[in-house]
Amino acid sequence: MTKNKVGVEIPEEYVSKHGVYEGELANINTYEESSRTIKPVKPRDEKLLDSIHDAIVKTGLKDGMTISFHHHFREGDKVLNMVMEEIANMGIKDISIAPSSIANVHAPLIDHIKNGVVTNITSSGLRDKVGAAISSGIMENPVVIRSHGGRAAAVARGDIKVDVAFLGAPSSDAYGNANGTKGKAPCGSLGYAMVDAKYADQVVIITDSLMPYPNTPISIPQTDVDYVVVVDSIGDPKGIASGATRFTKNPKELLIAEYAAKVITNSPYFKQGFSFQTGTGGSSLAVTRFIREKMLEEGITASFALGGITNAMVELLEEGLVEKIIDVQDFDAPSGLSLGRNENHYEIDANMYASALSKGSVINQLDTAILSALEIDTDFNVNVMTGSDGVIRGASGGHSDTAFASKMSMVISPIIRGRIPTIVDKVNTVITPGSSVDVVVTEVGVAINPLRQDLIEHFKDLDVPQFTIEELKEKAYAIVGNPEPIQYGDKVVAVIEYRDGTVIDVVKNV
Amino acid sequence: MTKNKVGVEIPEEYVSKHGVYEGELANINTYEESSRTIKPVKPRDEKLLDSIHDAIVKTGLKDGMTISFHHHFREGDKVLNMVMEEIANMGIKDISIAPSSIANVHAPLIDHIKNGVVTNITSSGLRDKVGAAISSGIMENPVVIRSHGGRAAAVARGDIKVDVAFLGAPSSDAYGNANGTKGKAPCGSLGYAMVDAKYADQVVIITDSLMPYPNTPISIPQTDVDYVVVVDSIGDPKGIASGATRFTKNPKELLIAEYAAKVITNSPYFKQGFSFQTGTGGSSLAVTRFIREKMLEEGITASFALGGITNAMVELLEEGLVEKIIDVQDFDAPSGLSLGRNENHYEIDANMYASALSKGSVINQLDTAILSALEIDTDFNVNVMTGSDGVIRGASGGHSDTAFASKMSMVISPIIRGRIPTIVDKVNTVITPGSSVDVVVTEVGVAINPLRQDLIEHFKDLDVPQFTIEELKEKAYAIVGNPEPIQYGDKVVAVIEYRDGTVIDVVKNV
Repeated sequence: MTKNKVGVEIPEEYVSKHGVYEGELANINTYEESSRTIKPVKPRDEKLLDSIHDAIVKTGLKDGMTISFHHHFREGDKVLNMVMEEIANMGIKDISIAPSSIANVHAPLIDHIKNGVVTNITSSGLRDKVGAAISSGIMENPVVIRSHGGRAAAVARGDIKVDVAFLGAPSSDAYGNANGTKGKAPCGSLGYAMVDAKYADQVVIITDSLMPYPNTPISIPQTDVDYVVVVDSIGDPKGIASGATRFTKNPKELLIAEYAAKVITNSPYFKQGFSFQTGTGGSSLAVTRFIREKMLEEGITASFALGGITNAMVELLEEGLVEKIIDVQDFDAPSGLSLGRNENHYEIDANMYASALSKGSVINQLDTAILSALEIDTDFNVNVMTGSDGVIRGASGGHSDTAFASKMSMVISPIIRGRIPTIVDKVNTVITPGSSVDVVVTEVGVAINPLRQDLIEHFKDLDVPQFTIEELKEKAYAIVGNPEPIQYGDKVVAVIEYRDGTVIDVVKNV
Repeated sequence: MTKNKVGVEIPEEYVSKHGVYEGELANINTYEESSRTIKPVKPRDEKLLDSIHDAIVKTGLKDGMTISFHHHFREGDKVLNMVMEEIANMGIKDISIAPSSIANVHAPLIDHIKNGVVTNITSSGLRDKVGAAISSGIMENPVVIRSHGGRAAAVARGDIKVDVAFLGAPSSDAYGNANGTKGKAPCGSLGYAMVDAKYADQVVIITDSLMPYPNTPISIPQTDVDYVVVVDSIGDPKGIASGATRFTKNPKELLIAEYAAKVITNSPYFKQGFSFQTGTGGSSLAVTRFIREKMLEEGITASFALGGITNAMVELLEEGLVEKIIDVQDFDAPSGLSLGRNENHYEIDANMYASALSKGSVINQLDTAILSALEIDTDFNVNVMTGSDGVIRGASGGHSDTAFASKMSMVISPIIRGRIPTIVDKVNTVITPGSSVDVVVTEVGVAINPLRQDLIEHFKDLDVPQFTIEELKEKAYAIVGNPEPIQYGDKVVAVIEYRDGTVIDVVKNV
């Protein structure tokens, strides 16, 4: 066992394989970028194949290989299940899958794992059924959890080497020029898919909307694509892109949002040309609304807004309050639509969004980011992966990436949820190290990280109740009592990589 | 000596190094893509440097390294000379330069060669003074001439490994997001620069128009850029982008254009959704005008137009006769302007434009291409590199790329220029093998390559005089007499690579 910089004991097996977390910048080194094997496509060659079966045959996919998918279709995705079913039917085994995330809709994976079709998984997240199955210990090899930036970095450095990427695309021409803004089931940005397209040896575009050549705008270019398959449906549009996200009416969420907005608008970063990222939860969206009012009041505009994009951001763009949206992923239909028609709404890939190993990601230019939490501990460490029962149900996402890179990161959360404290002595799973978290915002007030004495000084007259993180924890425990310790088993079911590829935590079976 | 497939004897030295040309598809093989060394840029790092001098210091540029430039600024370029002057002043020697092309304005290179600062050159073209100096034998190592697609392929395969790319950009933000459509001296597409940005170990953006972050549209992303330098002027806008190109009034050029247009509009490819590339010469532009009339008459629109783009193409786009322009390079101000504002005018890089080693370039989808020639021989081989005196003065460009990849390639040329025949027994330098050329169009009529019996049959009733290529040559010789053979020296001053990287010809000193 080796204790890492957040005080977590890491078993030697993973220490030797990944290294341990030693601080945000301790393992950011010069490296040789991963390359791919290219099979040139000649002038009269065609890429269009009849079926996913044919694509699997053509790519030569076989036992032991690594394949990837993207999660832009969220709970509407049909691509992963279609491809995995065909792989299973063809008798191929021992496949490593590297989707950018895994949703509830991917529950059929559980059988593929049990049948030996899937033997390794890396993902940002694992939801309900699949998460619970993994936590119960159905896999021999632990899942490797990576942040969105960490996954892009792992692909760029070759830690993840994708043999075949199966990339669903809302529209594509027969030569593989694909985008997410046209077709029957648009998802908006293809930011996560774009990374796989650049680095995978072989890329299969799976679409339900074949367009005339050349299909533009081009998110994934023909030069990254080997084959194109047309299917009846890549996904359920309702699951892919919900309607416009609505603002919360929950008083607790509104209070958190009000406090968070006060922190931002009174911070040294709130000035003409500032930049921000907010999430998609109820409080996050409300923050956006409060910031908007203050921007109008002070005559300030933001240079850009970043991240997973929602309708709330698009409205600011259209109002002229945000000059540009930089978009790696869309969370609702209006934002996908905006990407397709507004030249100031700009698509980027996950590498440019958040990779610590790139020549500079957009989050490095970010003033402030609002992030969520399942748990926050008194060292400011944040868990967004495991529930209070220790079961995997969340996603690493861009949490550790933006928390570190932005100039002021804010984690917002109620101090309790139901009968469970959110502010705790020790989080079950560390996703983001406390040294990356600047301000915790709750409905009772805020706690500023003592590492940020500059902010403590700056905010000393802020019109929001201020506490130490210990005081917030005491308030939580006072309401719901001390949480019972979780009874874990001995098996490591997930290895949590920090964004630099080192191990920041492991999750054991429950 | 080894005789290659176009009958040219290649000295063993170059045979062992590059291989010899054995046919258009003989050496297109699966390969491992070149990778780059990435120095990650951390959150608070800055990329903006005070001077080109500082960029040279920061990149660690030293004797023996390879640097690159792009030629989008044409005769207006100041970047190459600025950087080379600084390198020379700093006493750095033995530099290999890999600009996408070299213009007249780069004559100071001659001194850098003589002083040992520059010892190797690869380029698409070499104009007047520099070409003459190279032809006179001032370099110890021969220049390697590559087509636009061949250069992209060489970069992708690592035949050209760029240590530092110095890329002029009409606009950039301080983090390196650059485009060619904004700023003081716009050039339009940055298609050639985009390739270098992706593969060079280090990239320095040199701009005279620093924009607020994030600068969009993004032709070169921050993730490909290490440093940014702001200078007073990257180039002379007049030299970078001339006004709209005018149509020829030369009767000979108009006749060639009329014949070429008849070939295209009567070909099997002229139907709804066809695609084409024309050049920028007087005849080429006139062809576009004649095709336009026929499109209107027959109610046909083109799916896309490709290549070096001029105002003539932009007018067709705006008129709705061409649905999309796919743009690797702009030749005049209106086309650069159009790229910046018309979403159906789409920028691509040189790899996607023309590389034989990509997963499929756009020229593979091209129906017909119109190409120029300095000489065409009776095997249909084409020379666009050396003059009738054997001196280097031209550019390989996209000639061999589009000639092979398009479904019907047409080479247009008068049969004589002044007292010099254009149709000859044997071209001085083979750039494009005759087997790639389908139709030669002159002012006296056309010659169809006997390899294209399908076209000979299809065009048998075409209302244009038809001859064999030998007959066209006889007509030329009948007017101006047999050309005198050139007295070459023994020194190889240029190695001509075919687009697959093999040697198709060499140029000796004169």
